[in-house]
Amino acid sequence: MGLGSIVKIFMPKDKVFYSLFEEVATNLSNMSDLFIKAVKEEDVSKRVELLKSLEEWEHKNDIVTHKIFVELGRNFITPFDREDIHYLATALDDIADFMWGSAKRMINYNMSEIDTITVGFARIIHDAVKLLNTGVNELRNMRDLRAVTEVCVNVNSLENEGDDLLDKGMMELFSSKIEPVEIIKKKDLYQMLELVTDKCEDAANVIESIIIKYA
Amino acid sequence: MGLGSIVKIFMPKDKVFYSLFEEVATNLSNMSDLFIKAVKEEDVSKRVELLKSLEEWEHKNDIVTHKIFVELGRNFITPFDREDIHYLATALDDIADFMWGSAKRMINYNMSEIDTITVGFARIIHDAVKLLNTGVNELRNMRDLRAVTEVCVNVNSLENEGDDLLDKGMMELFSSKIEPVEIIKKKDLYQMLELVTDKCEDAANVIESIIIKYA
Amino acid sequence: MGLGSIVKIFMPKDKVFYSLFEEVATNLSNMSDLFIKAVKEEDVSKRVELLKSLEEWEHKNDIVTHKIFVELGRNFITPFDREDIHYLATALDDIADFMWGSAKRMINYNMSEIDTITVGFARIIHDAVKLLNTGVNELRNMRDLRAVTEVCVNVNSLENEGDDLLDKGMMELFSSKIEPVEIIKKKDLYQMLELVTDKCEDAANVIESIIIKYA
Repeated sequence: MGLGSIVKIFMPKDKVFYSLFEEVATNLSNMSDLFIKAVKEEDVSKRVELLKSLEEWEHKNDIVTHKIFVELGRNFITPFDREDIHYLATALDDIADFMWGSAKRMINYNMSEIDTITVGFARIIHDAVKLLNTGVNELRNMRDLRAVTEVCVNVNSLENEGDDLLDKGMMELFSSKIEPVEIIKKKDLYQMLELVTDKCEDAANVIESIIIKYA
Repeated sequence: MGLGSIVKIFMPKDKVFYSLFEEVATNLSNMSDLFIKAVKEEDVSKRVELLKSLEEWEHKNDIVTHKIFVELGRNFITPFDREDIHYLATALDDIADFMWGSAKRMINYNMSEIDTITVGFARIIHDAVKLLNTGVNELRNMRDLRAVTEVCVNVNSLENEGDDLLDKGMMELFSSKIEPVEIIKKKDLYQMLELVTDKCEDAANVIESIIIKYA
Repeated sequence: MGLGSIVKIFMPKDKVFYSLFEEVATNLSNMSDLFIKAVKEEDVSKRVELLKSLEEWEHKNDIVTHKIFVELGRNFITPFDREDIHYLATALDDIADFMWGSAKRMINYNMSEIDTITVGFARIIHDAVKLLNTGVNELRNMRDLRAVTEVCVNVNSLENEGDDLLDKGMMELFSSKIEPVEIIKKKDLYQMLELVTDKCEDAANVIESIIIKYA
């Protein structure tokens, strides 16, 4: 049996990673749509319903992520480096976890007023997740280095915006006469939202490094 | 010299990883026994003594973990993937660090009353660590995939319980008339306890992925 | 073409990693000089200027770190294990990020009084970064295992000092009659400073493991 035949045997199983990562990217996209819709919803009970609906998606995403790790264990041959699959799956799963974590804080801490900082983060996360979708879909053909570089540059810019927004939020909290308990709650929320943008950047960086290696 | 002889030469050095990981698992087990005993101890000074005794175990564990990394550097051949050894050693070491970190907070912050949230976490951590012991011991024979899968599923359930307990704890802190300073202290403790359960899950996931590859 | 020729072809590209890591180490050294100078500056506006100047260095460092990852993607042959390059670049970049993050907090939170805890951390970070410079420079010749072990042991001691300083700082915050808002600010700063020392330890550990493998 020649090398060609061996490659053919492995390729179909190998392709499973693209589909799984695309499924994760779609889940994240749906979550970020729900999240931005929620923070713009004026009606508190409707907003809480929207925020709660993120849990189901986060759970779905856990299952797909687990499948990626199982396939990684099973497959000797992978379409790109094993550690890149590991890093990418972890970063994308963290995005889902921390998006739901942010929603949960808004619910559990009874945050009835949504401030402009939170809305700003929802927009940044939404845009970053859409870019990551493009990036993940580029993995399958591994050709368009320019498109992926653009995704990466833009996600990095969004992450910088997130940093600035966190700084702005914290300065507002400390310069105003807000109750300490409210500061604790909001600081916790802002930091988790900023963490979502960090993980978007991590994911974009892994995608870029995969493309650099194989393009 | 045939391949068989080469394998024989390497095997004895190779086996050192099993013993070291088992030593770590035993340390963690002892720490979790002390921790649960401490949080159930009514007498404050006796409790503080028990909590303080965790430091020595954490220190012992640092030394064993360092040995694992030294062996990893020295050995070209390892019983399972190098990065899995790295991830597993790191996750188990984090469990020891954060368990001691939690104990230290209870001592340093003069937490004389132990609440039900803390007791709940001590129980979850205790159970997860015992399961990890089973998982680590399974690595040596690499056969019982079902037993390891059960360990992993159960540690994951315990981590979910930990998430819910943190949510419950935070909601209680914010809904009651607790002083801000007390909220800051307890939030810090709860988050570190929850981090211990996260690291138990990380360790279980690495063990599962090792067994999937080799079973 | 013999193996010797192949090695020669690859070596020049391969060497780029040493230069890039040395550049990062020099950046960190400059940052830690500025940081210690800032916390010792009595004049608030001069101090803020010094703290602000860290941002430029952090930005410079991001660019060098990005170059390391690009080279890692491009080069099939690396002077030491790919994952070690990844870990080391990440840990060193985190040092720059969190040093600037600490400076930014001092600016944004209007911390006009610098306490002894903060000065203590600046000194620990400064010393650890100078040791890391020695360690990074040793990578190029990969011979002096003793020198690197000493670096690693000393950085580990400094990280332990950092832990103790954080504990001391937190106990002081909670035992005094400081306003909750001030506690929140200082806790945030101390924890980030302690994170810098953690990342110094991570970097030292990677350097040690590289030297163990190749010395």
